[in-house]
Amino acid sequence: MGSTLIRGGTVVNADAAIRADVLVRDGRIVALGIGSDWTADTVIDATGMLVIPGGIDAHTHLEYPIDGFTTRTADDFYTGTVAAAHGGTTTILDFVKKEPDRSLYDTYLRRRDAALERSVVDFGLHAIVPPRAQQPDVLDDLRRLAGEGAAGWKFFMAYPGTQMVDDGELLEGFDLARELGVLPMVHAENGHMVARETQLLIDRGDTAEHFHATAHGHDSEAEAVHRAIVLAESVGAPLYVVHVSSAAAADEISRARADGRRVWAETCPQYLQVAYEDYEGLGEKAAAYLCSPPIRERSNQEGLWKALVTGAMATVATDHAGFCLHQPDDLPPQKLRSPGYFPKVPNGVPGIEDRLMVLWEGGVASGRFDACRFVDLVSTRPAKLFGLFPRKGIVAVGADADLVVWDPAADHVITTENTHMRTDYNLYDGMRVTGKPVHVLSRGEHLVDAAGSFSGAAGRGVFAERGAPHLF
Amino acid sequence: MGSTLIRGGTVVNADAAIRADVLVRDGRIVALGIGSDWTADTVIDATGMLVIPGGIDAHTHLEYPIDGFTTRTADDFYTGTVAAAHGGTTTILDFVKKEPDRSLYDTYLRRRDAALERSVVDFGLHAIVPPRAQQPDVLDDLRRLAGEGAAGWKFFMAYPGTQMVDDGELLEGFDLARELGVLPMVHAENGHMVARETQLLIDRGDTAEHFHATAHGHDSEAEAVHRAIVLAESVGAPLYVVHVSSAAAADEISRARADGRRVWAETCPQYLQVAYEDYEGLGEKAAAYLCSPPIRERSNQEGLWKALVTGAMATVATDHAGFCLHQPDDLPPQKLRSPGYFPKVPNGVPGIEDRLMVLWEGGVASGRFDACRFVDLVSTRPAKLFGLFPRKGIVAVGADADLVVWDPAADHVITTENTHMRTDYNLYDGMRVTGKPVHVLSRGEHLVDAAGSFSGAAGRGVFAERGAPHLF
Amino acid sequence: MGSTLIRGGTVVNADAAIRADVLVRDGRIVALGIGSDWTADTVIDATGMLVIPGGIDAHTHLEYPIDGFTTRTADDFYTGTVAAAHGGTTTILDFVKKEPDRSLYDTYLRRRDAALERSVVDFGLHAIVPPRAQQPDVLDDLRRLAGEGAAGWKFFMAYPGTQMVDDGELLEGFDLARELGVLPMVHAENGHMVARETQLLIDRGDTAEHFHATAHGHDSEAEAVHRAIVLAESVGAPLYVVHVSSAAAADEISRARADGRRVWAETCPQYLQVAYEDYEGLGEKAAAYLCSPPIRERSNQEGLWKALVTGAMATVATDHAGFCLHQPDDLPPQKLRSPGYFPKVPNGVPGIEDRLMVLWEGGVASGRFDACRFVDLVSTRPAKLFGLFPRKGIVAVGADADLVVWDPAADHVITTENTHMRTDYNLYDGMRVTGKPVHVLSRGEHLVDAAGSFSGAAGRGVFAERGAPHLF
Amino acid sequence: MGSTLIRGGTVVNADAAIRADVLVRDGRIVALGIGSDWTADTVIDATGMLVIPGGIDAHTHLEYPIDGFTTRTADDFYTGTVAAAHGGTTTILDFVKKEPDRSLYDTYLRRRDAALERSVVDFGLHAIVPPRAQQPDVLDDLRRLAGEGAAGWKFFMAYPGTQMVDDGELLEGFDLARELGVLPMVHAENGHMVARETQLLIDRGDTAEHFHATAHGHDSEAEAVHRAIVLAESVGAPLYVVHVSSAAAADEISRARADGRRVWAETCPQYLQVAYEDYEGLGEKAAAYLCSPPIRERSNQEGLWKALVTGAMATVATDHAGFCLHQPDDLPPQKLRSPGYFPKVPNGVPGIEDRLMVLWEGGVASGRFDACRFVDLVSTRPAKLFGLFPRKGIVAVGADADLVVWDPAADHVITTENTHMRTDYNLYDGMRVTGKPVHVLSRGEHLVDAAGSFSGAAGRGVFAERGAPHLF
Ligand SMILES: [Zn+2]
Ligand SMILES: [Zn+2]
Ligand SMILES: [Zn+2]
Ligand SMILES: [Zn+2]
Ligand SMILES: [Zn+2]
Ligand SMILES: [Zn+2]
Ligand SMILES: [Zn+2]
Ligand SMILES: [Zn+2]
Repeated sequence: MGSTLIRGGTVVNADAAIRADVLVRDGRIVALGIGSDWTADTVIDATGMLVIPGGIDAHTHLEYPIDGFTTRTADDFYTGTVAAAHGGTTTILDFVKKEPDRSLYDTYLRRRDAALERSVVDFGLHAIVPPRAQQPDVLDDLRRLAGEGAAGWKFFMAYPGTQMVDDGELLEGFDLARELGVLPMVHAENGHMVARETQLLIDRGDTAEHFHATAHGHDSEAEAVHRAIVLAESVGAPLYVVHVSSAAAADEISRARADGRRVWAETCPQYLQVAYEDYEGLGEKAAAYLCSPPIRERSNQEGLWKALVTGAMATVATDHAGFCLHQPDDLPPQKLRSPGYFPKVPNGVPGIEDRLMVLWEGGVASGRFDACRFVDLVSTRPAKLFGLFPRKGIVAVGADADLVVWDPAADHVITTENTHMRTDYNLYDGMRVTGKPVHVLSRGEHLVDAAGSFSGAAGRGVFAERGAPHLF
Repeated sequence: MGSTLIRGGTVVNADAAIRADVLVRDGRIVALGIGSDWTADTVIDATGMLVIPGGIDAHTHLEYPIDGFTTRTADDFYTGTVAAAHGGTTTILDFVKKEPDRSLYDTYLRRRDAALERSVVDFGLHAIVPPRAQQPDVLDDLRRLAGEGAAGWKFFMAYPGTQMVDDGELLEGFDLARELGVLPMVHAENGHMVARETQLLIDRGDTAEHFHATAHGHDSEAEAVHRAIVLAESVGAPLYVVHVSSAAAADEISRARADGRRVWAETCPQYLQVAYEDYEGLGEKAAAYLCSPPIRERSNQEGLWKALVTGAMATVATDHAGFCLHQPDDLPPQKLRSPGYFPKVPNGVPGIEDRLMVLWEGGVASGRFDACRFVDLVSTRPAKLFGLFPRKGIVAVGADADLVVWDPAADHVITTENTHMRTDYNLYDGMRVTGKPVHVLSRGEHLVDAAGSFSGAAGRGVFAERGAPHLF
Repeated sequence: MGSTLIRGGTVVNADAAIRADVLVRDGRIVALGIGSDWTADTVIDATGMLVIPGGIDAHTHLEYPIDGFTTRTADDFYTGTVAAAHGGTTTILDFVKKEPDRSLYDTYLRRRDAALERSVVDFGLHAIVPPRAQQPDVLDDLRRLAGEGAAGWKFFMAYPGTQMVDDGELLEGFDLARELGVLPMVHAENGHMVARETQLLIDRGDTAEHFHATAHGHDSEAEAVHRAIVLAESVGAPLYVVHVSSAAAADEISRARADGRRVWAETCPQYLQVAYEDYEGLGEKAAAYLCSPPIRERSNQEGLWKALVTGAMATVATDHAGFCLHQPDDLPPQKLRSPGYFPKVPNGVPGIEDRLMVLWEGGVASGRFDACRFVDLVSTRPAKLFGLFPRKGIVAVGADADLVVWDPAADHVITTENTHMRTDYNLYDGMRVTGKPVHVLSRGEHLVDAAGSFSGAAGRGVFAERGAPHLF
Repeated sequence: MGSTLIRGGTVVNADAAIRADVLVRDGRIVALGIGSDWTADTVIDATGMLVIPGGIDAHTHLEYPIDGFTTRTADDFYTGTVAAAHGGTTTILDFVKKEPDRSLYDTYLRRRDAALERSVVDFGLHAIVPPRAQQPDVLDDLRRLAGEGAAGWKFFMAYPGTQMVDDGELLEGFDLARELGVLPMVHAENGHMVARETQLLIDRGDTAEHFHATAHGHDSEAEAVHRAIVLAESVGAPLYVVHVSSAAAADEISRARADGRRVWAETCPQYLQVAYEDYEGLGEKAAAYLCSPPIRERSNQEGLWKALVTGAMATVATDHAGFCLHQPDDLPPQKLRSPGYFPKVPNGVPGIEDRLMVLWEGGVASGRFDACRFVDLVSTRPAKLFGLFPRKGIVAVGADADLVVWDPAADHVITTENTHMRTDYNLYDGMRVTGKPVHVLSRGEHLVDAAGSFSGAAGRGVFAERGAPHLF
């Protein structure tokens, strides 16, 4: 692969921004220096630029089956990871959901193979823990998955009857995660509360798309977060709460952390930057904004930003699960499969490519936090929590040369057209941003260059095995 | 000075522990590498060791006058900084208290000269802001001090009649600090509450040394912390609370930070490791433990540790203000000048040399937090808050080569004899610790070697000017 | 029945203590006066005494089947209410638990008949709402019960597989309660947490009686309280939490009330006055102390008392469910049916007769609160919450003449022998108290006189129908 | 005076609403009954009406000197108490502020004489504690005042340089209050914060009337409340916070009470019903709305109502301190003495007559709380806190016959014209209310009848001596 020298930039890690040259050899960073006389096969001039660790998106759903495998998300591992790379993300952590006729472990093997075949960036896989009723011996599979370096385990507190597990299953799963050093994750919504609200809305005929947000109340999310924290604490397990959307839920996490509980939380760009008011009046097209938990009122956003500033919230991932608004021929039914009836709209929004730009704009460019905190949220912290650190998540000697040269003073407008996701809309279409990736390297390979041309092969991505998590 | 190579160690910064060689030239770190073939004039083998940034003690009182200049602390800038270096601390931030017949600014110049003459490590100086009554034009002096790189400004909420300023002066001072980018600091105890309790104790005849702790209640500290936070917030200023001793006060800080307030707090080894129960029965010798705020009940300690773990507390400094227990000939009256009468016991305890070892033991060796957090508390965070970062507080290219090779698996016992402070007792005498400094470098100069021999000259320390603070 | 005049006492209601004579005619209070020249058939001299409304015990289990109807509590409606009357309690609210082969409604009718036949004081009945699986049309029965004046509805959040309902059933039940103006009640323990802890203890062989307390953690109670409050709030229903035993759970209630939530809570004398330390070392005899939630550590008591003082806790009931320690011939298996194996020890403790004396001692005699608050806790508030006010729960004109002449300066020792409950032990045996009932009247009938002789007939108690609750 | 019978009404006390006839003889209530055949000299038919205890306004300023005795409030003890009576208030607690050339005690005697001469309802007097600098022996006077039955002691935390006392004086005063069983009161605003904001506004030329609200921030009030609570707790004293205007301050009280602190708070109708938005655009006429603390944003109101509902707030008084908007000939300079310059506008608003009607409307008629809570807030609780209970504050035998027959279903509009205060405007002019007083009796004397005609003589009011307070 040869050597690469990134010269003249400011290296930004979670704790410091330092002027330094970065020398890469054989896919790894071998030296950082200042005033060096180093040479290399390739030299990238990063003058005026930041050099940051490649983004790690801890929550994606590529070629992902939903609703009883009746449909799937639009991006496959190839299109999704190409888009990720364009956006400065060089590692994704996707999910494995047990197929009806396969064990969780067998599904995992199939899905890992699929990713190995098509992914252009490195990837890990979280396992979704099915209710015991669907696989009585699931704990055995979880043990094997842990042994093979699968990332986290996700438990659903929502979707009674399909994915929801009860508190007893949570306790058992959390306890095993603690024993094996795996970080358990929860989708935190009280499934019964959501189900009841949904039924009441259906009974009233309030099934237009935007009522989805009504069905998923703040309280149902905050309650589930609170309960998950209590359950995890009771067995001594750490906890990761995915896609926190409600400021009330963020408050529960803040209180718990102030009290010394080992809980970390993730939010997503769509909750920070988009609002209920953006789709309330769109009619059927509001389907484009539907995900769970829902995109909430604009007044809710500031509480999420505050949680990022105070550290109550630890990571920003995408929950990328894009569906096209207009039905393409080659995909199963997408967003508009049941117009006017929110309970059947496929849940999920795209964002794998937008994440860094959107967070930089609202976070760093807006003065809420600095570039170090940005790096922590999008790369370092997910790497630490899911056992990839310090191989990934840092610009340091010995680490994988997953590097992004970031222009902190770009003048760029995000559009559906200039992004590469499969979906036919982009939630941030038209958004002007002042930071964007210029070069993207994955293990030293120059995937995206300053001209935006892409050169990675399908299947070049490798499985990023979970090592010991850093939970301090 | 030549070059130095520290080879084979694990570099520990606030965000990561990384295997790396460190190359030093002309007093600065010029490169970090792995698998390098670098050479240097001096090579230090750090195999099995950690390489951490030199400690920064943000709160010391060397050759410091107290009680109307009737006495002073035992260590001068020479003995104090020699001890600091032995303990792994390569930068101190001391205080300037206006002399009665001199302006604050003139006192500052004199004191800076004294430190330049005697200090063997780098130093900065905080200014103590006197009540307006003592110097009506003090705000002018503060402006000049800010311009000349003085560190923080300390305000006393205690000691009515001498150092205490009222809320109006706090507001004015905080506002100016905000304008000039200086971090204001408070000694947070409600002076009236302490004065009243003291008087009640005197009236009752309860003047034995240990009643000092009774006079300084938890509530007086928590109240002052709460008030300082409100006042700072009302003018948009950040805030630094020195020597937080009470878990109740730490709770106030925790709440404020969770609410997004920009407040940082410091605690000290004596509050973490020593307890009221240790001196309650010592009679006059309890004087050795008297400082303000006081060393509190053992049950209070866990709350302070928790605050370090959760991040509610940001730094650990010493408030080093040692006085001898037995009166030496060459010093003004020390600890025993008024036996049996706590209101006249000189306040302050030594610790400048013990800090890192004591915190490592209780923090890292005990499993409460990792080495990264340790580095953050003793070096990185103080550097950031007081505008010394990234010149100090980090092992990174471009930074001063203030480096400590730290043995994380030493088997060492702290004693009064094997430490170098001027005082004739050590609060941690007999404490077994498992981490200790092996080599100490200051700007590349090898001050302390593995044999413990010291080689720095008086006056080699330079003034560490405050740059832009990092307050995210 | 004629008229009765209680002369010379101090009438104590929830808001005031007033010198007044009380004139009773035909079972009701017809006048209060001062300096009156009233005459009556019977005159009771209450000089130096308090005249308080008869106690209302909102939580009793007389002749109550448990554990799949394999056994029952020791007191029947006759012995239990005789004991209640001796203790100053003139109304009880007992529970109806659906029998396996009968609907809830039919069980209710049978049980009401049993009480009508044997009870010597007035009574109401709460309905326990079975899981839908046990009676699919249970909501219909609840509607009928509401219409017939049944008191509250109790939902179990504990005992998965038998009585536990899930969050969906709670939501549905709370919503119906709101609609019908019934106060829903919860037994708040997270059943899954308790079940898991129990299983872990069994697996470890830790089945001695006192491990019962380990199985029922503070967190499982606090979590359930929190969740019940969220669920009730989400449907706009008020909530009553029975037998709060943990100070952590009381804190959840305190926070919710401060936030304006309409939640009330009950605690019991056993949680206030008895402690885990009292039975930890008793071996099999610890069975005498087993109830759910458990009697907790002594350090937990003060938090409960504080909640009574601040008003976070609204009522004190007994959860009277006595079982004999030594097996009598005429009762099914009692406390010692499975020595050394806590999961099978019948849960419940006696106290229906002790309640007022125990609470007076710890509350009023100890100076924690005044006699008015005492009356509120034991009589007025339960009357208000369960729709019996102002017919009961107050000494006022128009109210039932359920009256207790209370000696606030008695010197009395509670013993197993001098109390009248069926059980062969008394948790408060040997406790010295300074307040006790002297005369007890029920609807004007003199049940207990100063000599302690009792004169009420079985079946004289009438059904106390729920009216409109007072929920402010 | 003869006897009076109020027949057919519903007697409403703090804990119950009861159908009862009320028999009055010689100024006191001698009997309550139902179905009685009592006769009396005068019979008032209260069918369909409520019979409540006369209102007690714990905070008034009649003929009250302000601003260094340069002006005074518009109502004197006669006009003010006539208005009070018309509004259903039969007892007022006014204030004594030390005159410059007289001791506090001598001022008190003069002021008591003035009230005895002119007041038509009963009255008590709170003493305002001047800074020690103004009267070194003020504690001696406080002792004498306590002995003579003066009501509470008020301390100012605002107005540095004139009335503000420092924390040391607060501690000393609170401690003496505790010793003597007097309830200390605070005007809680941080004087330094307000003074600084005021100066900044003056410096910027922002002196228009409505900037008064900007000068008195929420944080200055909340801080002072927090501090007062800490100080009182540290000496074991109870505390009463007057005129709480900010929901943030109410939150501090709520937290403290939930934590078991003995603190009570008062708010006023103007903070509940009027808003900043009502006067922001009025120019000079905004002077009519200026009082301290200020009338705040509409969004602040709900937090105050919530505090009344939860019990965090204990009383509603008026802080009646009316000034005319148009200058009358016979009064010193009133509201418009310094148009356009808020720092010199006399602070205070009228309301002594409106209080009950306004609170009933927003509280009871709006469904926030019931009539019992209303009575508690306006009469029972102030009577208890200031040692007038149960002589006043309750409809009970033995109590003064201070009685209001209240129409709960009136259709009435408050206007400046139909109220009787001296001021030429009424903050509630045009407000439609559904509850109003119909008959008002003071110690059995029929002051106001159903036709609204008034018959009390100046000077008939008697001094209401403080007895033992009820602080549970
Ligand atoms: Zn999810
Ligand atoms: Zn997802
Ligand atoms: Zn200090
Ligand atoms: Zn200090
Ligand atoms: Zn129960
Ligand atoms: Zn029960
Ligand atoms: Zn005031
Ligand atoms: Zn006032």
